[in-house]
Amino acid sequence: MRKLLLQLDSSRLPSVFDQIVAYDAGADVVLSYGGVTEGDVRDLIHGCIFTRGPKDLHNTAVWIGGNNMSAGEQLLAMAQDALFAPFCVSIMLDSNGSNTTAVAGVVRIEETVGDLEGKKVLILAGTGPVGQRAAGLLAKDGAEVTITSRKPEQGEKARQFISARFNVQVEAATLNDPSRLPELLQGVEVLLNSGPAGVQMVPRSAWERAEALRVAVDLNAVPPLGIEGIEVNDTGVTRNGVVVFGAFGIGNFKTKLHKACVARLFTRNDLVLDAEAIAEIARELVGGKAPPSRKAPVPKKELAKKK
Amino acid sequence: MRKLLLQLDSSRLPSVFDQIVAYDAGADVVLSYGGVTEGDVRDLIHGCIFTRGPKDLHNTAVWIGGNNMSAGEQLLAMAQDALFAPFCVSIMLDSNGSNTTAVAGVVRIEETVGDLEGKKVLILAGTGPVGQRAAGLLAKDGAEVTITSRKPEQGEKARQFISARFNVQVEAATLNDPSRLPELLQGVEVLLNSGPAGVQMVPRSAWERAEALRVAVDLNAVPPLGIEGIEVNDTGVTRNGVVVFGAFGIGNFKTKLHKACVARLFTRNDLVLDAEAIAEIARELVGGKAPPSRKAPVPKKELAKKK
Amino acid sequence: MRKLLLQLDSSRLPSVFDQIVAYDAGADVVLSYGGVTEGDVRDLIHGCIFTRGPKDLHNTAVWIGGNNMSAGEQLLAMAQDALFAPFCVSIMLDSNGSNTTAVAGVVRIEETVGDLEGKKVLILAGTGPVGQRAAGLLAKDGAEVTITSRKPEQGEKARQFISARFNVQVEAATLNDPSRLPELLQGVEVLLNSGPAGVQMVPRSAWERAEALRVAVDLNAVPPLGIEGIEVNDTGVTRNGVVVFGAFGIGNFKTKLHKACVARLFTRNDLVLDAEAIAEIARELVGGKAPPSRKAPVPKKELAKKK
Repeated sequence: MRKLLLQLDSSRLPSVFDQIVAYDAGADVVLSYGGVTEGDVRDLIHGCIFTRGPKDLHNTAVWIGGNNMSAGEQLLAMAQDALFAPFCVSIMLDSNGSNTTAVAGVVRIEETVGDLEGKKVLILAGTGPVGQRAAGLLAKDGAEVTITSRKPEQGEKARQFISARFNVQVEAATLNDPSRLPELLQGVEVLLNSGPAGVQMVPRSAWERAEALRVAVDLNAVPPLGIEGIEVNDTGVTRNGVVVFGAFGIGNFKTKLHKACVARLFTRNDLVLDAEAIAEIARELVGGKAPPSRKAPVPKKELAKKK
Repeated sequence: MRKLLLQLDSSRLPSVFDQIVAYDAGADVVLSYGGVTEGDVRDLIHGCIFTRGPKDLHNTAVWIGGNNMSAGEQLLAMAQDALFAPFCVSIMLDSNGSNTTAVAGVVRIEETVGDLEGKKVLILAGTGPVGQRAAGLLAKDGAEVTITSRKPEQGEKARQFISARFNVQVEAATLNDPSRLPELLQGVEVLLNSGPAGVQMVPRSAWERAEALRVAVDLNAVPPLGIEGIEVNDTGVTRNGVVVFGAFGIGNFKTKLHKACVARLFTRNDLVLDAEAIAEIARELVGGKAPPSRKAPVPKKELAKKK
Repeated sequence: MRKLLLQLDSSRLPSVFDQIVAYDAGADVVLSYGGVTEGDVRDLIHGCIFTRGPKDLHNTAVWIGGNNMSAGEQLLAMAQDALFAPFCVSIMLDSNGSNTTAVAGVVRIEETVGDLEGKKVLILAGTGPVGQRAAGLLAKDGAEVTITSRKPEQGEKARQFISARFNVQVEAATLNDPSRLPELLQGVEVLLNSGPAGVQMVPRSAWERAEALRVAVDLNAVPPLGIEGIEVNDTGVTRNGVVVFGAFGIGNFKTKLHKACVARLFTRNDLVLDAEAIAEIARELVGGKAPPSRKAPVPKKELAKKK
């Protein structure tokens, strides 16, 4: 029985990127739909669940994408609403690659820092989908997260979204002038830039002076890059005593994660892969264990058994 | 050479259901087109018939679907018009599943009742695509068919459509109040409900008192069901002395029929699978023979040879 | 790794013809996009080049089609603009089959005539995409090409387009009355009709009297045919002392060429198959060598080595 991936894309032309990765990840056929709106979802999902028996439904899965993460979230909610056990199919949300990108950055940070409990994290331009998801995941790791925005209202709105979505507390700060950076970077151990492509957010001088800084991630791949001095291909190299990752350094892991998630969709018919579940898969990929703060220690016997 | 199914769907987003069943029925690739209008058909069909030689054209077929059966009928007419021997491809029409659903119901009735010649049949809400097709097929079996509608004009219009399409005579009756049911059910041996989802058309008391009734079929799968007392999964069980079928009981056979039809499309390049031809395939599936009234008796020798 | 062909079609419904030929030519999956405009191209192409590594990108290719050749040319320009080495994919342009049709006609003419240097060529209704491309290619072969049009302004515009696109000189002549044909055919050795379907452009009497004429090609497949006396299936037969080709005679070679081009796309990741490159592939198909005027003689030793 062929593995069919139903691509529901909120943009008029469904993502070529998502289709190709799906094929390379093992989907046999992608049923590709663009311009999908909330009102369309019910029938499309019912077309999935009423064609194959529950035993076979792990061979059908749903991918939700598009340029607009908020539209994607609405499609996901509608899709979940159209399922009723045992007539379920697994679903993944990754509009604009936001989930896999945010998770790839977060897991690289977790690998580098280890226990994030109480660590100060600054997420630049954290109001977008990638920044919000990274903020939520790092806050769940126990970090003290601050997101920045140019306008205070946007920051406050994003802060509320993140709190509601991830059930955590984060702070919002206004950053409309690089001169505020030294103050914002005080005590910060983790810096993540999710600002717009081609915009330098942090001049070299600003982060060189941030004494607590241990890891910095720049997700902007288009010159001028977002954090001056981090190269786009950097993957865990140390610069100025800070472990740094550039956009391609994160991107390679993101693509690997994206494929692993698509493959995972076809193993069961009841998965919902949004930020947290995707993060779990990413942690498995990098070493099979969750960061200390989220998981009780595993007795040695258990570990031995797993091997 | 891959088996290609061209899906021409009158709805904006082409049916996921039809695509998945096509793949499961053996199509290698579904070329999926939504929002197809009459004016589009000629070029799309020519794209089929001018690419492969006549000897290979049984590997290309056309599926016409969409929410609107009347739009589907127009697409079918245009598609047939665009063919010219020997440049033909097989075509099936099943907008909204109407043909396979109606046929599945009719063939279950044929199996149960046997010879339908002169038998009284009542089709509730027989003005829709499923009801019209069931009425036409049962009338061709020799039954005395009455369709009901809430408004007399709609019933009369449907009656005329059925007569023209199937070259038969059926009656239309107005049913805007359950109190009329006892009168309408007088002498009726076959009751088929093709009314809207979630609407009870027949209370239990009404059909329990219908003394001639032998088989009752309810195509409504959404509670409240259409004929009170028939369960959605009923498949030929006897209730109150009547053999009954619920929507899922018919639906399983419908899906099997749907797949068989798609597979059949790829055996020749000159099939047109509309109601009658689909009914023939369904009859083969349930036992290889047509009901007595439509077919001269086959001598024993012939039957022996066929084995 | 599957061979993926991204079909970018300027028409609302992407060509079925192009999809089927692509599958028959060896593409594993066609990612089919209709209604593609210039503004869409960049993201679609980036979806191709950022998913697979440069080493694997010969397994992804782009097909540009649609009813409108000029729209196709704009899509091609945008697509090339979105590539940057080594992140490239091979691309072919064949809107409305114009390139493969023109090339198939031209290469049949080259085969028949041999060296075209200084030969007089007349292309009837040479203002359309097929006529323009045939004119450009034959002029590059060294022929003295004249295109005809009903209106002088259209002819002049086409003449300028051809000159700019192919860097050659051609002539334009007005032909709004068959009585002008004897004068226009004077000294002409090659006659190609790319006029509209179902329009007779040349009565039999006109080309029977053209004494220099050696080859005549009619691309109109719909009766009345374009050159009276040439049958639609003619493939290099001699009529009235002239070697003639009808539309199907050319069409068979065109389809073979179309498939060869699709297959070629998947051999490298840096091809751009427009008229000239497609002509090279066609010449390989018919005998492995270019016509004398475009190629310096190859020493015997070299030829021996190639074997």
